[in-house]
Amino acid sequence: MKTYFECIPCFMQQALKAGKMTAENDKQLKKILDETGCLIKSFSLESTPAEYGAEVYKLIREITGVEDPYKEIKKQSIEDAKKLYPELKEIVEKSRNRLLTAVRIAIAGNIIDFGVNKKFSLKEDVQRILTQDFAIFDFLQFEKALREARTILYLGDNAGESVFDKLLIEEISDKKVIYAVREIPVINDAVYEDAIASGLDELAEIISSGAKAPGTILSQCNDEFIEIFNTADIVISKGQGNYEGLSDVKRSVFFLLKAKCGVIARDLRVNENDIIIKGINLLPN
Amino acid sequence: MKTYFECIPCFMQQALKAGKMTAENDKQLKKILDETGCLIKSFSLESTPAEYGAEVYKLIREITGVEDPYKEIKKQSIEDAKKLYPELKEIVEKSRNRLLTAVRIAIAGNIIDFGVNKKFSLKEDVQRILTQDFAIFDFLQFEKALREARTILYLGDNAGESVFDKLLIEEISDKKVIYAVREIPVINDAVYEDAIASGLDELAEIISSGAKAPGTILSQCNDEFIEIFNTADIVISKGQGNYEGLSDVKRSVFFLLKAKCGVIARDLRVNENDIIIKGINLLPN
Repeated sequence: MKTYFECIPCFMQQALKAGKMTAENDKQLKKILDETGCLIKSFSLESTPAEYGAEVYKLIREITGVEDPYKEIKKQSIEDAKKLYPELKEIVEKSRNRLLTAVRIAIAGNIIDFGVNKKFSLKEDVQRILTQDFAIFDFLQFEKALREARTILYLGDNAGESVFDKLLIEEISDKKVIYAVREIPVINDAVYEDAIASGLDELAEIISSGAKAPGTILSQCNDEFIEIFNTADIVISKGQGNYEGLSDVKRSVFFLLKAKCGVIARDLRVNENDIIIKGINLLPN
Repeated sequence: MKTYFECIPCFMQQALKAGKMTAENDKQLKKILDETGCLIKSFSLESTPAEYGAEVYKLIREITGVEDPYKEIKKQSIEDAKKLYPELKEIVEKSRNRLLTAVRIAIAGNIIDFGVNKKFSLKEDVQRILTQDFAIFDFLQFEKALREARTILYLGDNAGESVFDKLLIEEISDKKVIYAVREIPVINDAVYEDAIASGLDELAEIISSGAKAPGTILSQCNDEFIEIFNTADIVISKGQGNYEGLSDVKRSVFFLLKAKCGVIARDLRVNENDIIIKGINLLPN
């Protein structure tokens, strides 16, 4: 997905938010905004927003020396999600369609996103998403692909959301599941230790995609990841950042996300706050 | 008032909005955002937001060649406000305190602001403001100052709002009223012809302040305006932009506005959406 004009003020907003959390003083914060402003000129709109984002968070790291501004927030998000886990597990257990319920829960976890200028209330939002209609519903194709699959590449998104992902992975753990995380901390995206803290190592092999962006940008990814990406029977891609990077790839991918911003919604031709399970490049039935 | 960090993403948002209305193509729009981004570095936070804004709108004019992007919108706002005028006049006529009601109406007009990232519904917002509590209420001092005044400098803000101002000026038209507008079009701020179209010339002398910013920046103002500003018995300042420019001046000023953004609200120590009539540098009673 290319960058929309509307993404540009949003980058400034994100720089301000992350800068406020990390800058030592006002001078440093001003420098972050100055440099983010200058960055716009050097970027083409043909790049994905996640690539832009990578540069913004990189310069914040360089200016402040803070490698992981969201470290504590991520820890807290994982704890909060773990507290909800038993309740969510019970919802799956009691549901008529375990897989669909687990998909809904995994999407609900996608609201834990500090890169989007929106507040969220975890418990309420989960409740809403459990009964919300899907704007794109390629669930039957997803179910069918899963039946036939042996290896699944699952692209994680945010820390905390990773605990919600666990509930979906538990439903498909008769397959080999590889859970990919970012190479380095960007916003509150999950890195290796967040996946471990979420208990995902009990069910999946955890790898780094190599991405230093808040999304899966294939040109940034490491060889191991690319190999798995190309050969896995199914790719499940969580969240906006991964969609930004992969919406135009050639292989089949199932995107599970909530459209949290107007730009993503427009690109998907859905409304803001819609939830989707969307398959691309699927084989005809 | 100095510029807050939060103003910076807002400038990008404003550049995007005005750019979309005026740019011939995507390349031009990108250039507007590129240049607005670069501008940040050259600006100190000691400047007022209105000064920043002046530079943003100046570069949009330079890049697009469009002198007045909001021309049609301003015309429409004035027409819409004029349609409401008879109803508003009746509200003043029937009120127990005509002056206070006219002040409320003048403040209600302040919602017609296309520089703020907020939608408004003219009729509903007017109804709300007619009964809303003031967060700062220096009305008694205002009333007293008016009783003793002979000349009043009234600083206009937005086109359309100018029609609402007329209702307040009608209540004080036994004095000499000078209504000041911007020198050139910035956002939807009123310029000379907008004041004429609003019928203000029937009641007041209309002058240009000389300001090329979306606010009264004294260093930009012309000699005639400065002379009047220094000698008028009362200065009535409408809206956020004028507040930004004048909140730290030495003379007495009455600010009438609705705090439409978080930054102005914080500066005034009120809540967003609060309405205020605030006098500064008033003589002790």
